[in-house]
Amino acid sequence: MKDTMLAVLKTRPEPGGTELIEVPIPKLEPNDVLIKVKICSICGTDVHIYNWNPWAQNRINPPLLHGHEFAGEVVEIGTNVEHISVGDYVSAEGHFFCGDCNNCRMEMRHICGNLKILGVDTDGIFAEYAKIPAQNVWKNDPDLPLEYASVQDPLGNAVHTVFASDVPGRNVIILGCGPIGLFATAVCKKIGAAQIFCTEKKYEYRADIAKKVGANKVFFGDEDVHTEVMDATDGVGADVVLEFTGSPEAVNQGLELLRPGGTIVLLGLFSREFCTDLTNNVVFKYTSIKGITGRLIWDTWYRMKGLFKAGLNLDPVITHKFKFEEFFEAMDVMRSGNSGKVVLYME
Amino acid sequence: MKDTMLAVLKTRPEPGGTELIEVPIPKLEPNDVLIKVKICSICGTDVHIYNWNPWAQNRINPPLLHGHEFAGEVVEIGTNVEHISVGDYVSAEGHFFCGDCNNCRMEMRHICGNLKILGVDTDGIFAEYAKIPAQNVWKNDPDLPLEYASVQDPLGNAVHTVFASDVPGRNVIILGCGPIGLFATAVCKKIGAAQIFCTEKKYEYRADIAKKVGANKVFFGDEDVHTEVMDATDGVGADVVLEFTGSPEAVNQGLELLRPGGTIVLLGLFSREFCTDLTNNVVFKYTSIKGITGRLIWDTWYRMKGLFKAGLNLDPVITHKFKFEEFFEAMDVMRSGNSGKVVLYME
Amino acid sequence: MKDTMLAVLKTRPEPGGTELIEVPIPKLEPNDVLIKVKICSICGTDVHIYNWNPWAQNRINPPLLHGHEFAGEVVEIGTNVEHISVGDYVSAEGHFFCGDCNNCRMEMRHICGNLKILGVDTDGIFAEYAKIPAQNVWKNDPDLPLEYASVQDPLGNAVHTVFASDVPGRNVIILGCGPIGLFATAVCKKIGAAQIFCTEKKYEYRADIAKKVGANKVFFGDEDVHTEVMDATDGVGADVVLEFTGSPEAVNQGLELLRPGGTIVLLGLFSREFCTDLTNNVVFKYTSIKGITGRLIWDTWYRMKGLFKAGLNLDPVITHKFKFEEFFEAMDVMRSGNSGKVVLYME
Amino acid sequence: MKDTMLAVLKTRPEPGGTELIEVPIPKLEPNDVLIKVKICSICGTDVHIYNWNPWAQNRINPPLLHGHEFAGEVVEIGTNVEHISVGDYVSAEGHFFCGDCNNCRMEMRHICGNLKILGVDTDGIFAEYAKIPAQNVWKNDPDLPLEYASVQDPLGNAVHTVFASDVPGRNVIILGCGPIGLFATAVCKKIGAAQIFCTEKKYEYRADIAKKVGANKVFFGDEDVHTEVMDATDGVGADVVLEFTGSPEAVNQGLELLRPGGTIVLLGLFSREFCTDLTNNVVFKYTSIKGITGRLIWDTWYRMKGLFKAGLNLDPVITHKFKFEEFFEAMDVMRSGNSGKVVLYME
Repeated sequence: MKDTMLAVLKTRPEPGGTELIEVPIPKLEPNDVLIKVKICSICGTDVHIYNWNPWAQNRINPPLLHGHEFAGEVVEIGTNVEHISVGDYVSAEGHFFCGDCNNCRMEMRHICGNLKILGVDTDGIFAEYAKIPAQNVWKNDPDLPLEYASVQDPLGNAVHTVFASDVPGRNVIILGCGPIGLFATAVCKKIGAAQIFCTEKKYEYRADIAKKVGANKVFFGDEDVHTEVMDATDGVGADVVLEFTGSPEAVNQGLELLRPGGTIVLLGLFSREFCTDLTNNVVFKYTSIKGITGRLIWDTWYRMKGLFKAGLNLDPVITHKFKFEEFFEAMDVMRSGNSGKVVLYME
Repeated sequence: MKDTMLAVLKTRPEPGGTELIEVPIPKLEPNDVLIKVKICSICGTDVHIYNWNPWAQNRINPPLLHGHEFAGEVVEIGTNVEHISVGDYVSAEGHFFCGDCNNCRMEMRHICGNLKILGVDTDGIFAEYAKIPAQNVWKNDPDLPLEYASVQDPLGNAVHTVFASDVPGRNVIILGCGPIGLFATAVCKKIGAAQIFCTEKKYEYRADIAKKVGANKVFFGDEDVHTEVMDATDGVGADVVLEFTGSPEAVNQGLELLRPGGTIVLLGLFSREFCTDLTNNVVFKYTSIKGITGRLIWDTWYRMKGLFKAGLNLDPVITHKFKFEEFFEAMDVMRSGNSGKVVLYME
Repeated sequence: MKDTMLAVLKTRPEPGGTELIEVPIPKLEPNDVLIKVKICSICGTDVHIYNWNPWAQNRINPPLLHGHEFAGEVVEIGTNVEHISVGDYVSAEGHFFCGDCNNCRMEMRHICGNLKILGVDTDGIFAEYAKIPAQNVWKNDPDLPLEYASVQDPLGNAVHTVFASDVPGRNVIILGCGPIGLFATAVCKKIGAAQIFCTEKKYEYRADIAKKVGANKVFFGDEDVHTEVMDATDGVGADVVLEFTGSPEAVNQGLELLRPGGTIVLLGLFSREFCTDLTNNVVFKYTSIKGITGRLIWDTWYRMKGLFKAGLNLDPVITHKFKFEEFFEAMDVMRSGNSGKVVLYME
Repeated sequence: MKDTMLAVLKTRPEPGGTELIEVPIPKLEPNDVLIKVKICSICGTDVHIYNWNPWAQNRINPPLLHGHEFAGEVVEIGTNVEHISVGDYVSAEGHFFCGDCNNCRMEMRHICGNLKILGVDTDGIFAEYAKIPAQNVWKNDPDLPLEYASVQDPLGNAVHTVFASDVPGRNVIILGCGPIGLFATAVCKKIGAAQIFCTEKKYEYRADIAKKVGANKVFFGDEDVHTEVMDATDGVGADVVLEFTGSPEAVNQGLELLRPGGTIVLLGLFSREFCTDLTNNVVFKYTSIKGITGRLIWDTWYRMKGLFKAGLNLDPVITHKFKFEEFFEAMDVMRSGNSGKVVLYME
């Protein structure tokens, strides 16, 4: 094995500021494994880092090797590693947890008090090799397509969100058709949602994908949602609302469209304050609101594994495929908004 | 409207002992509605009554108009009835509940302490007209096929059983491929079970239907279940077992095939004592066992409505269609075991 | 039995505007029962009606016989009533439900789509006799003290709120020490809350009662809550927050004091808009928010019955006892804020 | 620090066969901590090992240092240990888990596929010092009495069992008044059980303790349970049954005393086959049965911590206190059955 590898490195604190260069292959600690990356995919977080948006300016310290969605093959294991073998086909949970804090010991490792995020707080996986703590490695089923294995991080966000409510046989509204909203649509379809209503304000490209993965109706732009949802639900409203936009107005729209006793789950991140009429939207309406982040470790991953076995179809969401060397073209597609997930293959 | 109607009457306490004759159309009490039956279907209970098996001998007092699975149109409403109108397309929950006993007030109306069962304890619906208490009437969606509307009683048993555990993305074993087991298979498929394994000891006809409604594998007769289920679940066992046979041996087989921390749900009725090793099958294995009967009133019905909207496909299970006048042929098919559900159409 | 009864009648649409006068004893419909009132208690709603606040001006149509908290003895039953007998010692659920709408059929009778509230939408129980639909009557245990039987409506609000989260062995914050907040404190104490922290902005009288019913600490006025709660919870925050003030600021305080993954339950009604930072207070914090109103019919009542058996002590909350004829003095005490619950005895 | 420590060693495969002798103080691996034992307590398992019963003959390989209930002070930490400090007041979860198997990754570390039990599969803690993996160490609140800290293993069994059902405000039957049944009684009392009915077949001594920790009634020997429980529950039966005897007859008694829709939780271990009528005891009765073993890691421990804060009183259950050197007298008391928990103090 050579000593260096090709990697996407954010080298400068500025928009772009990213290079595709050779860097040293990481050295293993006793509890780590080294993975030959076979495929990776671009997250909205990677776009933020690339664009050097305000969040990135506050959080990221270049040089950083970013990226956290991937799948590959184990090529080396640390001296303490017992349950993983060279040759295993794996992906990884990108939230590194301590296991000892209160949150970890209360089965909330995804919000560990000492959380480090792969490709944000530590070097990531846009590279030929990735070093991952063994306790974060997940063995994929051997027949899982590479593209599906790669997107388990955002798919897991969607699965975590969907399973925080009760979807089979229920009417569901999905606010926002970014990649995670699209994955959520596919999952809701797979588990027998009665009807799925999606909203997408901006990208017709994504609204079209929502239809392909199972939406009964997609409301694009400023289309009137209220009348149609109420008609389709006997005037009752939706049982479940899943929020992926981060828009305060969308949350209020969701609360209005929710039936009495319904549940709204929030995964989107809000850059503005949210204001509402709690008495009528929450108290008298007997509403449940749940905030969700990350993936349950490992409950969400088992659920994904089972949904893959069940035949979950994500193909319409994985819209663009590039070679790793074409990283900058891939990033441009992702930045355009006219895409679902964008994956890159090593070879 | 004429004064009499054609009906299937169990007139004599003996095998057969059933006549297709004219009887008076029932008179309404203030809280009842009168329904013109458009379709009905034959339950295993009706076979027991027809065959005059030991259960029937103890429970049934001829003359009895039996049958409880049906759909039709409201033609008259009692003077107190407010929320149902003449012309409504309806079915009915066949468990008549008092609403006032402890079980009713604890949301368990399906096991009401004063329960009367339609077509068992009261005159049923194998007839041109049915009298039903308004509080038991369920309005069907206008576009629901008659056959689907008719079988909501046994489908509801299946849905109640399936939703007593956690199926989406999980590996499921279904013990017994009678009509309810077949409905459960279709429901598990619809809500994204990872893999569905069915067993059927006796009727190859039914094993074939199980494959059509979504079983990944049906074990017929004495085929070895253990090896294949363990292989297909990474040696872990199934997450969920649903029991529809009433065989003590099947329950023990289910407990053995269940993974640690799994759930087994029991709907089948047992004519023999069940014996097991609680320490290893339940305590150390961290097993949950749940007994299920009837349908949750009305949670199960809402769930069915949603699954119909989701596109639940029951066609392969509804194997035979007769005219009402052909009741005896229909009953013979049902008694043969070489059938799924058998439905009868009026006019 | 005489034809008239003494009653508290809101006769004029103005502050006060209330008379203690003879009115006809109500006539029973077939599904009603007539109850001789032995005790009643004054709710905050009665104070609003008395004060003729903006809510009352919009909702109440004088003349109205108000009041809804009471206990008494059945003296007559309607012709259809089967499960209640003359002589039964009863109270009543004051939310009258239709039983047929979607909310009712989804086990949410307390938010029935056709809800009528006793003493608000219909004549109430500040009188010698009360007419109540049989389906709303609750039989009290014979040895239940009259005062406890009378306050089951507000106690039920508290029980519904407390049991919407997971309190035994958990750290709980109770925002607001009005009568319902005080009842919630007593309930949390009875079911083994780890520590109970109460806040009360205005009435020292009520803060003192909170201590008597089990608060580990009551923060009065502008005392610093944050430091002490964090110290007492190892820097983690409270597992559960129960909100009874209706103040937007209190909700934000509660969200801040909640531990990651905690639950806040809202019963208070808000007259102003609520604004918050959803990203940090809900999404990243993995928070659950639940709106609560009324009482689960009948789950909450069974729970109360069990808590009474367990020895729930409400004595410190029931601070004032009057004769029914002293209604105006009782109302003045209640309006002062220097009271817990105020009860009135007949005869 | 000296090199050897006083310890209770099972040296010979026979009844008794145990010596109080000096053995080497264990050496730490990088992930271990060394704890100076201040108190320990005797479990039924220790009695089995001492008596050399059939279970012990199959499972135990002398020489074994046994014992697993204890509390003490950390005196040394391994080189990888970060979250525990010398001087910490700790106890330990005695189920050593791998963290990587399916059961561990499904939040069931207490039934880890590679489970090792302290003092059974590895050397235990009846000694001056104990070596424990850091991931199994639990920090006690500084003001927790030594006796309470020591018995968290069996108390945790009780808490795990109690919290597997819904006890606050519910009627509970506890089958068997051994130490764990007594702890369960105290916990049910603390969290507001409506009424607690205990059974104890053999030891009047233990029946008396059950009354002291909160049982409303203890049925000793062959007293008639059925009539009294049914009378006390309005003819309905108990909401919850907790089984600690391991007797098949007790389980059937529990099923009979359970109300429709109730839950029975099984912690006792059965040496004989269990036989029952599933149709009437489980299916038609809508019963839930749950097998329980060990403690949820760490949910059960957090719950215990909270219950201690709530003032849980275990004093009546901790009946005998000895010096460590009096181990054999302590064991004799424990073997007599005329005891609750027996604790031993170091120095």
